[in-house]
Amino acid sequence: MWDALKPAEPAGTCDLRFFQERLIRMAVGWFYLSFYSLWFLGLMCIILTIYWVQLWHGGFAWDGTLLMFNYHPVFMVVGSVVLYSAASLLYRLPQSWVGPKLPWKIGHAMLHLLAFILTVLGLVAVFQLHRRSRITNLYSLHSWLGIVTVFLFACQWFLGFVVFLLPWMSVWLRSLLKPIHVFFGVVILSLSIASVISGINEKLFFSLNNATQPYSNLPSEAIFANSLGMLVVVFGLLVLYILLVSSWKRPETGILTEGQVWRPGFPLPVWDGAESRGDSPRKALGLARKTTQ
Amino acid sequence: MWDALKPAEPAGTCDLRFFQERLIRMAVGWFYLSFYSLWFLGLMCIILTIYWVQLWHGGFAWDGTLLMFNYHPVFMVVGSVVLYSAASLLYRLPQSWVGPKLPWKIGHAMLHLLAFILTVLGLVAVFQLHRRSRITNLYSLHSWLGIVTVFLFACQWFLGFVVFLLPWMSVWLRSLLKPIHVFFGVVILSLSIASVISGINEKLFFSLNNATQPYSNLPSEAIFANSLGMLVVVFGLLVLYILLVSSWKRPETGILTEGQVWRPGFPLPVWDGAESRGDSPRKALGLARKTTQ
Repeated sequence: MWDALKPAEPAGTCDLRFFQERLIRMAVGWFYLSFYSLWFLGLMCIILTIYWVQLWHGGFAWDGTLLMFNYHPVFMVVGSVVLYSAASLLYRLPQSWVGPKLPWKIGHAMLHLLAFILTVLGLVAVFQLHRRSRITNLYSLHSWLGIVTVFLFACQWFLGFVVFLLPWMSVWLRSLLKPIHVFFGVVILSLSIASVISGINEKLFFSLNNATQPYSNLPSEAIFANSLGMLVVVFGLLVLYILLVSSWKRPETGILTEGQVWRPGFPLPVWDGAESRGDSPRKALGLARKTTQ
Repeated sequence: MWDALKPAEPAGTCDLRFFQERLIRMAVGWFYLSFYSLWFLGLMCIILTIYWVQLWHGGFAWDGTLLMFNYHPVFMVVGSVVLYSAASLLYRLPQSWVGPKLPWKIGHAMLHLLAFILTVLGLVAVFQLHRRSRITNLYSLHSWLGIVTVFLFACQWFLGFVVFLLPWMSVWLRSLLKPIHVFFGVVILSLSIASVISGINEKLFFSLNNATQPYSNLPSEAIFANSLGMLVVVFGLLVLYILLVSSWKRPETGILTEGQVWRPGFPLPVWDGAESRGDSPRKALGLARKTTQ
């Protein structure tokens, strides 16, 4: 275990093996460091959003006033960013790589459903304020992007449920649609973060518009909310990193993903029944990986 | 060639083969359709941005006034979105998959350098206006995100140049750092688009702030610029799709990328000298793909 701390030896074959093992240990360390950082960052995003609207905008009330609007940023950060990310990253947990996939699929779908419900509540909060105060709905670019993102989220959840959870869809069609599902997962998160950034920016131009405390003077609220926006970006980038770094994925049947090696401390995979019946979907389609031309 | 138009036969082994060929032809079609759509969308993003500032904001002048600011959105859309995307996608052209890689690497670096110069000119345009009009620099979240994105762009270009273009870096280190380089390529584009969205939103709140034509009344400029913002998003998503869909990548030495098949009409790969010497970097590190456990 402590070999990694040994001083470097002269270059040679043994040295390469030693370096390789060290890299693998570093990778496992990075994995857990990333996950714990993610927990911390996600929690900080939620706490700081609540703190922002509580301290500078009077807190919460479900009454159609500006206090109701305050639920909007909180629900959006919690639902469409933090919980959405947690749901997306469920398959990146090494624990999800072993045994049957179905319980993890259900967990993935349920967490996303909860994220979606919170996102819709976030929309309700702003639409209710607009209705009471006779403000036009959906006029800013932030709102256009936001509503398109929520629409894509709804489509993604519904199609994901039909294709990957209901039992009658063929395995090869699932295999074919999976990259599209993952791609749109990444897209929706990216658009959510772009919506959050433009939303915080817009809110600060609204609230810091008086002559004594303009946004351009960078009062404490501006620094706080700008930092919150940048924190959401950092959180999102870390999620995208874990989603896109292929060696932390649940392996497909009999095939290791590009760059994927079994690492010490990670469980060995046990393929579930549905996937081990007959040829793999990629093989059936002639799309199985070839190691030589 | 016209087999794809044959009516579907009853299910069977031959039918699967026929369906498989049809899928491959569809994939080639998708590839070229995506590339031509990209050209069209990128061009439209540039033209519409110029049209927006020309028609509603009086055009351009490099004189430190608001007319100089008008270069800002144009240079940002051209440099950090459209040209950046073109440079990033250079390796997705099938023509780049054959023969030596070096000319394509130089093209990739030079196009990115041009994109970076235009981005910096976009920054100069806004800093000059702020200096002349005594407006604080870098106070909004849009500006914070934008400047971080430009900083990341500079780091990415410099590190990319040192690691992938200068000849003394070892092949295995390049192989190790390539996924990080590609990941940050995707990140910088995503952040650029988020910056563009928050920038257009901010600009519209500035320019449509009078009582007769407020943003919330959705005057023609608001509809136009909101649509421009959404077009930039669609363009960015198409770029991300092409970047992340693995079957359109230049293949690594002797290994086809996940889901990658040689398609009719695509050139056959000829590995360049540097990559065919001895073991592949992944193999040297023990990271070469295993087809079975």
